[in-house]
Amino acid sequence: MDEQGVPHSAILLVSCPDRSGLVATITRFIHENNGNIINLEQYVDPGEKVFFMRLEWDLSHFSIPLHTFGETFQNAIATEFGMEWSLHSSSEKPRMAIFVSTHSHCLYDILSHAHAGDWNVEIPLIISNHPTLEPVAKKFGIDYRVFPMTSDNKRTQEEKELALLREYQIDFVVLARYMQILTAEFVTHYPSRVINIHHSFLPAFAGAKPYHSAHDRGVKLIGATSHYVTVDLDAGPIIEQEIVRVSHADSVDDLIRKGRDLEKAVLSRAIWHHLRRNILVFRNRTIVFA
Amino acid sequence: MDEQGVPHSAILLVSCPDRSGLVATITRFIHENNGNIINLEQYVDPGEKVFFMRLEWDLSHFSIPLHTFGETFQNAIATEFGMEWSLHSSSEKPRMAIFVSTHSHCLYDILSHAHAGDWNVEIPLIISNHPTLEPVAKKFGIDYRVFPMTSDNKRTQEEKELALLREYQIDFVVLARYMQILTAEFVTHYPSRVINIHHSFLPAFAGAKPYHSAHDRGVKLIGATSHYVTVDLDAGPIIEQEIVRVSHADSVDDLIRKGRDLEKAVLSRAIWHHLRRNILVFRNRTIVFA
Amino acid sequence: MDEQGVPHSAILLVSCPDRSGLVATITRFIHENNGNIINLEQYVDPGEKVFFMRLEWDLSHFSIPLHTFGETFQNAIATEFGMEWSLHSSSEKPRMAIFVSTHSHCLYDILSHAHAGDWNVEIPLIISNHPTLEPVAKKFGIDYRVFPMTSDNKRTQEEKELALLREYQIDFVVLARYMQILTAEFVTHYPSRVINIHHSFLPAFAGAKPYHSAHDRGVKLIGATSHYVTVDLDAGPIIEQEIVRVSHADSVDDLIRKGRDLEKAVLSRAIWHHLRRNILVFRNRTIVFA
Amino acid sequence: MDEQGVPHSAILLVSCPDRSGLVATITRFIHENNGNIINLEQYVDPGEKVFFMRLEWDLSHFSIPLHTFGETFQNAIATEFGMEWSLHSSSEKPRMAIFVSTHSHCLYDILSHAHAGDWNVEIPLIISNHPTLEPVAKKFGIDYRVFPMTSDNKRTQEEKELALLREYQIDFVVLARYMQILTAEFVTHYPSRVINIHHSFLPAFAGAKPYHSAHDRGVKLIGATSHYVTVDLDAGPIIEQEIVRVSHADSVDDLIRKGRDLEKAVLSRAIWHHLRRNILVFRNRTIVFA
Repeated sequence: MDEQGVPHSAILLVSCPDRSGLVATITRFIHENNGNIINLEQYVDPGEKVFFMRLEWDLSHFSIPLHTFGETFQNAIATEFGMEWSLHSSSEKPRMAIFVSTHSHCLYDILSHAHAGDWNVEIPLIISNHPTLEPVAKKFGIDYRVFPMTSDNKRTQEEKELALLREYQIDFVVLARYMQILTAEFVTHYPSRVINIHHSFLPAFAGAKPYHSAHDRGVKLIGATSHYVTVDLDAGPIIEQEIVRVSHADSVDDLIRKGRDLEKAVLSRAIWHHLRRNILVFRNRTIVFA
Repeated sequence: MDEQGVPHSAILLVSCPDRSGLVATITRFIHENNGNIINLEQYVDPGEKVFFMRLEWDLSHFSIPLHTFGETFQNAIATEFGMEWSLHSSSEKPRMAIFVSTHSHCLYDILSHAHAGDWNVEIPLIISNHPTLEPVAKKFGIDYRVFPMTSDNKRTQEEKELALLREYQIDFVVLARYMQILTAEFVTHYPSRVINIHHSFLPAFAGAKPYHSAHDRGVKLIGATSHYVTVDLDAGPIIEQEIVRVSHADSVDDLIRKGRDLEKAVLSRAIWHHLRRNILVFRNRTIVFA
Repeated sequence: MDEQGVPHSAILLVSCPDRSGLVATITRFIHENNGNIINLEQYVDPGEKVFFMRLEWDLSHFSIPLHTFGETFQNAIATEFGMEWSLHSSSEKPRMAIFVSTHSHCLYDILSHAHAGDWNVEIPLIISNHPTLEPVAKKFGIDYRVFPMTSDNKRTQEEKELALLREYQIDFVVLARYMQILTAEFVTHYPSRVINIHHSFLPAFAGAKPYHSAHDRGVKLIGATSHYVTVDLDAGPIIEQEIVRVSHADSVDDLIRKGRDLEKAVLSRAIWHHLRRNILVFRNRTIVFA
Repeated sequence: MDEQGVPHSAILLVSCPDRSGLVATITRFIHENNGNIINLEQYVDPGEKVFFMRLEWDLSHFSIPLHTFGETFQNAIATEFGMEWSLHSSSEKPRMAIFVSTHSHCLYDILSHAHAGDWNVEIPLIISNHPTLEPVAKKFGIDYRVFPMTSDNKRTQEEKELALLREYQIDFVVLARYMQILTAEFVTHYPSRVINIHHSFLPAFAGAKPYHSAHDRGVKLIGATSHYVTVDLDAGPIIEQEIVRVSHADSVDDLIRKGRDLEKAVLSRAIWHHLRRNILVFRNRTIVFA
């Protein structure tokens, strides 16, 4: 039981080549070890014939201790079926770092969710290329570290940031309107563990100043896209998108204003899915079991 | 294989008291009889502890003929777990009757979907209390039968309609803006098999003239709701809902105009889910596996 | 009064360099000639300092006959302010031609609206590069003409089409999933009078097979865009856009199915705005007074 | 010019019995006094024949000082046409008080907007019936006053609150999930100046525990509604509404979680419209010029 009396549960994420009997095999394994399945979602990519599953079960009577589950599951099932898998416990509390520049709206929305206890997360660290938002970090008692970026110092600054992430034992990073492009070196340290919010309906208006481009094009809807960061700018696997209606009467400033509310909502939903272990990544696309 | 070369599949809908091992037991049964699971969706009502599942599998190598599946499944599994279940084959073509009054928009949308081959359905019969839409039925070569309704003749007219539905071997009925209230007697003949479209976001504005009520109340969104008809007016299990934005500048006529496009879209989506066997009904709510 | 007893009204669309006193001058002119303003919408492009207005007034007591309004208005006001303007009467019934290929969903939706009397429009002609949809045209008693297209004959076929449009006195053209690209020659004959529906959220996925591209990119929303056709493919002024949510579980076929409902809804809304004279075009953008 | 170099503007909100020449008269008056109209929106209620207008003009060269505008406008125009009107200057900074109970999500969203400078507003005071959110107020340096409520002390506590609102020169009140019902006495002090957020799509699920009711009814969308508070509970003029999609798989807790994000977004949009002077109230409905 956790503090709220909710029984602990485990979440298993699995992917492997599709084969007859996969669901039966896995669910029987959990069942025979006295795990009661709370939730099962599966998807088979029909083109690639790849099987994906998210399985959540109650640990109250589960007969395998979680620290030995890996070895047992690997030997009993995973090796035979060529599975990639990861196990997560509801009692883990992932540690998140937030990267910001000067815009506060996404940062406040994240801190508001965390502070209200909506999310099962620790936020020990905020990193920025500007001192602007330090007062916000202070309000919430979170360490705030500034790494000014120039075209010359990016690699060395990023190395310091990476060291800091290790020191703070950070599990994943959220770019909350961080206006810098991470190097490929940085990104490869956190595969599918850096979440960005882009202020357009990707793939439309990738790159800089999307609201200006949207205004120029005269679109009737603007969007925001949260995605995992890969080495290709604004081209990583999309987690969540949303739009809002605009009209000819909306200036670029109006788009920016409406967009802010969209960005923070979309980013927070993506973080929620990440924390809930709802997401699997395959070939630059996400499977989001929600 | 069907005409398009898509392999035949079977869909099993199951509900029963929740118990450990249900998924494992059912999927193993299908697997051991050489059925390859294409899709599995399950849900457990956490309050009532009831288990629901929609299971779709490829029949190409399935070793149990569908006409004996029922007996086999009942003896092997269903009796033991107290299951209610239904089996459907992708080669079935359900037969639908449409009830209309004088509005054509939902009727056209349904016929347009059916005519384009979007849906796996036969529509042999349209019933109305008015002759108004007979020309539409004629365009599509569908029998159109008129049963004028008065306060005195409803029971006898409905009996004739029911006889006609039997004669045409109708599986389910769609009320496509049929402005009459069906009697409880009629409804009980087609439990969870009469689909209605109500022109409001239920439970707001149940009953007559919802667009007038919405305008009076000054709402900023109007809705449409498709639901299964029960003996309680506008209170049956909701299948699908959608809304559209309105403003102070929209007159009642504008709401009616915007609402028409909403009604037909919502009704057609509900019919799609019904035809795909995505829906289970429990305690006046639907589980829609989509 | 028209047949429904609605008084005739006039709609004036105006654009000109912004200047102090424009609204006052125009509304005083209408007022002094006994026109009662029903609706006034204006917009000033803040960057370009251009003024746009849509003015609708009741003609019951209007003292200027419509056939002399142009000369009077030009002399009294338009010349002085450098206005471009157009006048429309609610008693006009614009004549629309529909271009189709083989998909019927947009065509049915348009004909359903027209047939139900939702729109003030005549549809005397449907043109296609395929005979496929002739039966649909026949159902509605509309002439259907086939012009097969090859890479060699496009210019000569389009000339025949243009002759036909003149013969039928067509005011504007709707491309209802017409899978051919019109030549610049054709387009220049109908500036801001050819309405297309593109099956993506432009500018994302311009060009062919947008649903395949959307699926490859793993987007979480798909869209449809209606725009006026210009000589730049899929780059004309956007009239209306809408989206629908999709997930990893949606195949390309699912996107196509969901997209169909989106396309027809978006196209029909664009036609509605065009017929209502809600639209002004400026620098490849639309002002839609709605 | 204000601090950002944006020229000061004035906003005039007008309502009166509809009559020919109203727009011409008002715009000529502004024009003749060297006001350049930036924005004009008007609406005529077709049933009640009442005229509404929101007029915004640039004050740079306006020849009437704002402090004498009232008398001049009243004598020149308003008396003759029986107008109700109000004048607002872009240099005013309205003073808002926030009432909260224990939920922080709306409060954080408001403070985040205010703190980022998105809104032209002062927030000197937060009032609550609980001490819970005092730390949030402290983070932002805002006075926080607690008035515990019992069935016996409501009248006397409200009197103290009203005294405090006067002391702080509060212009309008926002109930940011304040779980108390204000008395009619309180409400009458701030007509159309108390903004509430109700956690349902009104008029569905008025009253307490709307998410539980929505779950019981099995709706497929949940909503939130922001409205001005009147003496009839949850029945005041609606300013803004929005919905989000839910499914059978969403528990009451999921609805509450999704609803929180909806509530804060809807409330903040309503506050924006109020601050922008976009809203007129007539017969329990709002005209929102946006």
